Amino acid sequence: MTLKERINAANEEAFRRMAAADPVLVDVAPASQVIPGMRDRLILHSGPPVTWERMCGAQRGAAIGMCLFEGWARDAAEAEGMLARAEIELEPNHHHATVGPMAGTITSNMWVWVVENKSFGNRAYCRQVESFQQFGDHSEAALAALFSWRDTWGPALGQAVRSLGGIPLKPLIARALQMGDEMHNRVVASSSLFANVVAPALAASGLPAEQVQSTLHYAGNHPFLFLGLSMAASKATMDPVRGIESSTVVTAMARNGTDFGIQVSGLDGEWFTAPSPRVHGLLLPGWKEEDAGLDMGDSAITETAGLGGFALGGAPGILAFTGGTAAQALAYSRDMRAIAVGLSPNYLIPALDFEGTAMGIDIRKVVQASLVPVIDTAIAHREMGHGIIGGGLVRPPLECFTRALTRFSEVYSAAREA
Amino acid sequence: MTLKERINAANEEAFRRMAAADPVLVDVAPASQVIPGMRDRLILHSGPPVTWERMCGAQRGAAIGMCLFEGWARDAAEAEGMLARAEIELEPNHHHATVGPMAGTITSNMWVWVVENKSFGNRAYCRQVESFQQFGDHSEAALAALFSWRDTWGPALGQAVRSLGGIPLKPLIARALQMGDEMHNRVVASSSLFANVVAPALAASGLPAEQVQSTLHYAGNHPFLFLGLSMAASKATMDPVRGIESSTVVTAMARNGTDFGIQVSGLDGEWFTAPSPRVHGLLLPGWKEEDAGLDMGDSAITETAGLGGFALGGAPGILAFTGGTAAQALAYSRDMRAIAVGLSPNYLIPALDFEGTAMGIDIRKVVQASLVPVIDTAIAHREMGHGIIGGGLVRPPLECFTRALTRFSEVYSAAREA
Repeated sequence: MTLKERINAANEEAFRRMAAADPVLVDVAPASQVIPGMRDRLILHSGPPVTWERMCGAQRGAAIGMCLFEGWARDAAEAEGMLARAEIELEPNHHHATVGPMAGTITSNMWVWVVENKSFGNRAYCRQVESFQQFGDHSEAALAALFSWRDTWGPALGQAVRSLGGIPLKPLIARALQMGDEMHNRVVASSSLFANVVAPALAASGLPAEQVQSTLHYAGNHPFLFLGLSMAASKATMDPVRGIESSTVVTAMARNGTDFGIQVSGLDGEWFTAPSPRVHGLLLPGWKEEDAGLDMGDSAITETAGLGGFALGGAPGILAFTGGTAAQALAYSRDMRAIAVGLSPNYLIPALDFEGTAMGIDIRKVVQASLVPVIDTAIAHREMGHGIIGGGLVRPPLECFTRALTRFSEVYSAAREA
Repeated sequence: MTLKERINAANEEAFRRMAAADPVLVDVAPASQVIPGMRDRLILHSGPPVTWERMCGAQRGAAIGMCLFEGWARDAAEAEGMLARAEIELEPNHHHATVGPMAGTITSNMWVWVVENKSFGNRAYCRQVESFQQFGDHSEAALAALFSWRDTWGPALGQAVRSLGGIPLKPLIARALQMGDEMHNRVVASSSLFANVVAPALAASGLPAEQVQSTLHYAGNHPFLFLGLSMAASKATMDPVRGIESSTVVTAMARNGTDFGIQVSGLDGEWFTAPSPRVHGLLLPGWKEEDAGLDMGDSAITETAGLGGFALGGAPGILAFTGGTAAQALAYSRDMRAIAVGLSPNYLIPALDFEGTAMGIDIRKVVQASLVPVIDTAIAHREMGHGIIGGGLVRPPLECFTRALTRFSEVYSAAREA
């Protein structure tokens, strides 16, 4: 077999594993109990590895928030000092089978969605989505939502999910894609369907009436609730794709607001990074272009799995949040076929006459076509202390892919010569 | 003012009233307590007036089902005899501010959705949607769902709705139109959103746990639940449009499986009928074209209000049920603009770059363009005893509109001469 033939075969295997994935929500639990390698005084964050010195404002603010949430510091100044002195460790979520939206910060007592890929037995984790602390706001009001999640909603949802014996996410995602969701910036349908599924279990939970009411309200009125689930499902889908020899399929795209990084199946463990790009989109009233931080979050795991920007054509409702026209949304979805291994047999888009979403990003095709993935995203402020300020579309730097391809050639040519 | 100017002004007023409608679900209650003119031994039915002799098989089967549901007869044969001897009265829903899906049969003890148009103070009613009895199946299994609705789900939902002080439907419909619903054949998003709204109220209702669980399951898993609500909301929207002098706007389109009938604002109280047409669509496995009954149901009130087929472009997911392509769905929505007074300022379609649905059918434009409305619908068997057998699209007979326009000319020319 030529190298090209070996790559194609490896990529077919990668595609097969993605299509065969069966992500099931099995629990909601404290990170310390479920995330491998989770420990005290450790903050997991989104994107490739980053030091406190190079960390962007929003992620710094979120990290300070976690120190306060955990009670490691009494105030923001103390937290900042501890972080600056490296008394708190920082590691990427992706090194712990985990993903997090925006700043993506996760510590021991943060409850996380636990998703098991039943076809491969691996588990992945993601924290809940909210619009303040993960954007860098560490105020008391921002932290209040974290405490409600830890003390009220997380435990109640965990009990409901366990009592249901788990909730298969693949059918929920497939249905929501036919209801205008793209599973990244727009998850209103999937969030609503998920709330329908857990409602009877919550009502029958025997938990205090106030907790049941509060959790029903939380689940039934959170337009981004399902993003944490689609991220965990996507991570659970992509982890078994890691480490396939000769595969040029992307297994992770993640950003920390300073660097954009990708990982590639046949080069497992390596990050290929370039500076985080600017997001193009719409800012909430009162914010200017100069306020915006650079691209941030592990949520591009959804695009890595063939959702998000790849499913934009079926989600024109998102354009109110990102700008653009319905025709452009359809074009994005069609364009992505040029850089993908194939079309998903599971995730079908009615607006594309029920064709599947493009799935499995091949770095060779990206470089050859000079066409990078399209990613839906939210926008954080460039400085700490603010909630969400907008949303839009972003394109990864092409350099991530060219660097990965160069490295791929080195590794696999060397292997051949050896 | 010329007649043309008077008509245009009247139609603008009709459009204004449609746009200003504010349908709110205020109760779920037994028909006998809420529907004006409801009485014992009366069956309300869909479509224009029809006698037992001319009634189609599916509607006959549904009427027999209601006799059994009410306990007026011990078996189907006895019920059929009573109906044939006119011991049971038959009147159209539309004569009672009411609509019903398919056969549309409603009797005293059938619980109905109660929707109040807060802008005008009028109320409209619709029964629940299910896939058997209203299609003509009067078996014990088909009736069991009616008893569960009467004894368990209807009362629980009524209490929940009242405890919430009513549920505004306009925002739910607006959101669902951005989630792939068209509010007639596809109401999965609105049904899911509605279930989210009632879940906390059901959990807090204090009703027996079994009833709460059963109702949460019913509401959270019924893909056609909201059709009864979108029909009642559409009827509540259209009733204040009746009787505007000189208006050529259609206020009702309804079918009984024998006749298709329309009503026109400036000719209030009159029906303009022609034979019910054949539905073009997809049949469920096991059924043939010859099995299909003709077009039936009051559900075309949704198209009358600018929803359903008029919103198809935003609901390509429906094509799995009706056939056709996404491009055709968009074309249908665009085509309807040619026969409408204007575009809805409330109900926007993302796939049409957030333009409103065509709203307010003008019989002049229909006749001039020889273009009749497009209507989404389900398909019943031509004989009694069966549940749903398919779904598709249907076009009303042009004769309904030409007859109405001829009559309009007679009435308003006469008025002018007088």
